[in-house]
Amino acid sequence: MTTGHTATDLTGRMLIAGTPVFGEGEKIRAVDPGTGAELEPAYGHGGQAEVERACAAAESAFEIYRATTFEQRAVFLETIADNIEAIGDALSARAHAESGLPLARTTGERGRTTGQLRLFAQVVREGSFTGARIDPALPDRAPAPRADIRQRKIPLGPVAVFGASNFPLAFSVAGGDTASALAAGCPVVVKAHDAHPGTCELVARAISDAVTSCGLPAGTFSLLYGSGPGLGTALVTDPRIQAVGFTGSRGAGLALTAAAHSRPQPIPVYAEMSSINPVFLLPGALHARAAELGGEFVGSLTMGSGQFCTNPGLVVAIDGPELTAFLDSAADAVSASAPTPMLTPGIARSYAAGVEALAAKGEVTVLARGQESDAPQSCRAALLVTDASAFLDGEGLDEEVFGSSSLVIRCRDADELRQVAAGLEGQLTATVHATAEDTGEAGALLPTLERKAGRILFNGWPTGVEVGHAMVHGGPFPSTSDSRTTSVGTLAIDRFVRPVAYQDVPAELLPGVLADCNPENIWRRVDGELGKH
Amino acid sequence: MTTGHTATDLTGRMLIAGTPVFGEGEKIRAVDPGTGAELEPAYGHGGQAEVERACAAAESAFEIYRATTFEQRAVFLETIADNIEAIGDALSARAHAESGLPLARTTGERGRTTGQLRLFAQVVREGSFTGARIDPALPDRAPAPRADIRQRKIPLGPVAVFGASNFPLAFSVAGGDTASALAAGCPVVVKAHDAHPGTCELVARAISDAVTSCGLPAGTFSLLYGSGPGLGTALVTDPRIQAVGFTGSRGAGLALTAAAHSRPQPIPVYAEMSSINPVFLLPGALHARAAELGGEFVGSLTMGSGQFCTNPGLVVAIDGPELTAFLDSAADAVSASAPTPMLTPGIARSYAAGVEALAAKGEVTVLARGQESDAPQSCRAALLVTDASAFLDGEGLDEEVFGSSSLVIRCRDADELRQVAAGLEGQLTATVHATAEDTGEAGALLPTLERKAGRILFNGWPTGVEVGHAMVHGGPFPSTSDSRTTSVGTLAIDRFVRPVAYQDVPAELLPGVLADCNPENIWRRVDGELGKH
Repeated sequence: MTTGHTATDLTGRMLIAGTPVFGEGEKIRAVDPGTGAELEPAYGHGGQAEVERACAAAESAFEIYRATTFEQRAVFLETIADNIEAIGDALSARAHAESGLPLARTTGERGRTTGQLRLFAQVVREGSFTGARIDPALPDRAPAPRADIRQRKIPLGPVAVFGASNFPLAFSVAGGDTASALAAGCPVVVKAHDAHPGTCELVARAISDAVTSCGLPAGTFSLLYGSGPGLGTALVTDPRIQAVGFTGSRGAGLALTAAAHSRPQPIPVYAEMSSINPVFLLPGALHARAAELGGEFVGSLTMGSGQFCTNPGLVVAIDGPELTAFLDSAADAVSASAPTPMLTPGIARSYAAGVEALAAKGEVTVLARGQESDAPQSCRAALLVTDASAFLDGEGLDEEVFGSSSLVIRCRDADELRQVAAGLEGQLTATVHATAEDTGEAGALLPTLERKAGRILFNGWPTGVEVGHAMVHGGPFPSTSDSRTTSVGTLAIDRFVRPVAYQDVPAELLPGVLADCNPENIWRRVDGELGKH
Repeated sequence: MTTGHTATDLTGRMLIAGTPVFGEGEKIRAVDPGTGAELEPAYGHGGQAEVERACAAAESAFEIYRATTFEQRAVFLETIADNIEAIGDALSARAHAESGLPLARTTGERGRTTGQLRLFAQVVREGSFTGARIDPALPDRAPAPRADIRQRKIPLGPVAVFGASNFPLAFSVAGGDTASALAAGCPVVVKAHDAHPGTCELVARAISDAVTSCGLPAGTFSLLYGSGPGLGTALVTDPRIQAVGFTGSRGAGLALTAAAHSRPQPIPVYAEMSSINPVFLLPGALHARAAELGGEFVGSLTMGSGQFCTNPGLVVAIDGPELTAFLDSAADAVSASAPTPMLTPGIARSYAAGVEALAAKGEVTVLARGQESDAPQSCRAALLVTDASAFLDGEGLDEEVFGSSSLVIRCRDADELRQVAAGLEGQLTATVHATAEDTGEAGALLPTLERKAGRILFNGWPTGVEVGHAMVHGGPFPSTSDSRTTSVGTLAIDRFVRPVAYQDVPAELLPGVLADCNPENIWRRVDGELGKH
């Protein structure tokens, strides 16, 4: 190992272009959510100097890194995956200790993380992300000849990544943002998440070791630590950073977006922020299986203490005895639900305050709460109910409460249900439970849901985001800051590239993906026709 | 005609969802740049009420318009093109009268405009812009089955378009922004350009008539008039508008971008703003044909009074006798150049002030000016020269002067030439003149130019933007507000769509592009593999 330690010795250091660096000032220390105990080691903060050092290294690495072949870049991503696996069980154990998420979950998440890296290796080898297009010259065209014009997409430049608290592996140091940015050809500077600093260090070393063993420039990757907005703002406003990937709260996402837009050269920010993920229970589905739906719903609601971006925070249905059966079943399940630890003391406090604020609204009734606990930061599930009229009055009943809290909206009729759908803010997901007899109503709802959400799912639950080619984990504002993309799945690579046209550029200077003989054997659009030509 | 007039009778009215509407307040009147004479008719302003009316109509048209088949939408675009041609010579004559651009140019621009609409019709029929992807279900996958997940891109919603002064047809009411937004499935509300209100009215009627004859909802298209920022800001901040296309000045583009970002729901703005389009003359090229290059350069510089976004406003070369030969030739051509009218009195004033400010800088020498004129708003070409050291001092020598003005940067050596390239802001184009002996130097320059420009061209001149599949008319800030796209060429359609994933959506509710049998016969990515499957 380049760091001179065994894989699981934590050093409390940042990793700037391959060099371990101790930070200054107040120390960041993970807290075991199960016990409230502080975990060793402590991590010092990086400041302006460390941001500049990491960004300068990323900038100087960029031209070399982006010039790597598809094969080199794919092998690099696969090596990162191999190195993460090589850490062994110590990684999922540390992620478990820092997050309070079950060990089975952090182990599964490790597989998702390495699978994601390997999927992006395939995407790089396949080459379509370069968007190659060739319009050959037409020297005899009248009234004027056409020049030879070719197009490919190139990486934007160094990317800043801010990981999420709730996925210490799959949405963190080597998560989807980092994997897609590296795949695109962009060096990455990650701000470690305060809640899982040790997990960050382990994964960062896996990446940094891959940088070394693949012979890439050291600045291809850096990891910085820093509490509060200072380091993050410094990173986003560094002139060398050309795009930002972020997963977290609406407040933090909007602050970073504002900072990025106020730069002398504004840059794109892909912030995945808040979503309440409405679930519509249509009459046929309720008629067929109200009680089962109630149980399944609470399973999705309470999984991982409800700490999913796609947690079902809103349920919408037409009032009646079948909705009552659903509510009875769900209330029983919530009442029986055991308290589970939340990621951080701050998240637990916000959750408790959020439920309290919702319950204090005049028109909202608390139907059930999960079991109480003396544990320091546990999540006590909450099921609340209100009428559509109160929801539509716009008294803030649509604000995300991050955790196992969900609000059921009772509608008078199908028309009111559609009004609730139309009044929603942008969402990551929208779910419909429907049987064949609901097809008409579901079809009427679908165009509205398409405009509100990045993913529409039927007869399932929104938690669980498949990493594939067709996934969209994104959606209209405020679920993300940029609805034109996704932060999960292979399309995520599009966030970090931009098109460049080459007009009459001599053959010996053309990039390989645009050469006449198609040496990379990739799909290209020639005079508008797709083919491997 | 729905307006009850012959095609070329101008009425002075806006066109809101098919209904002609007189505006209020101070009148907008075109001025013939050749004579300074005001042209009939006068156009009243729209205000908040007209913005709301047009946006409400666009919103209510959206669901119906976006549900049209590819064929219906393609025929609509082709009908607009047919209707524009049916106006006959009166259209290019009016555009000529309002812009002062030569009649041959406005006639050619009409062909470019209709060609562009027909090209987008092809793009719609071909269907790849929907980005269809299918990851079939894997019910037997361990440890968990995979759901059926499909993805397509849907249109964003109503789009606001702000046309350019310098292309009264191809970048205006039925220009590239409108064509690509309509192709994507977005209704369009255009703010007419004050400088060519009559041309706007004629083209708007051609579109509106196509809306009617194609049986589309009237709100699919509206045209509003309004001077100053008021109407534009009202349009961009209307909650129904979901994206903005703009071509114009940096100041106006940044103001609209700020307004769009400060909305409760921020929206994307595609503003094409300012660029000085550097031209690098490498030693081999200068050695081979310095004098010819000087003549060609001035041809590009003075065409259309230099009023092109891609006008060559900066020339960079290594000092020496061959650069002197280039300068002598260019100075002769500039001195001989006849004064030509500029688009508006304001543009002519800004041009004169811009040249004066540049000439007043200590290190800048005026090499040649075009011939003087008594005409009210004519452009007198300007050729200026300075040293790289002065340019690199950052005294604002890189600001765009819109018109036939260009600054030549004399460099000591190749190293200084590369420093000038590296110090540039984002550009629409970067041009290299090189022979075989310059290949090494050109190759060293290329990575820098890729990061600075949307289009790189060799041994040509940047004016003249081909409309095709491979064109990029875009580039890093400040040449545009969003470098990830283009405003010319078929990729422009990507600006107005966003991906949506459909998980386990019943077959009868899936959009046609995602149906199992591929009824549209389009390219789709199934489990990551491209094919017509």
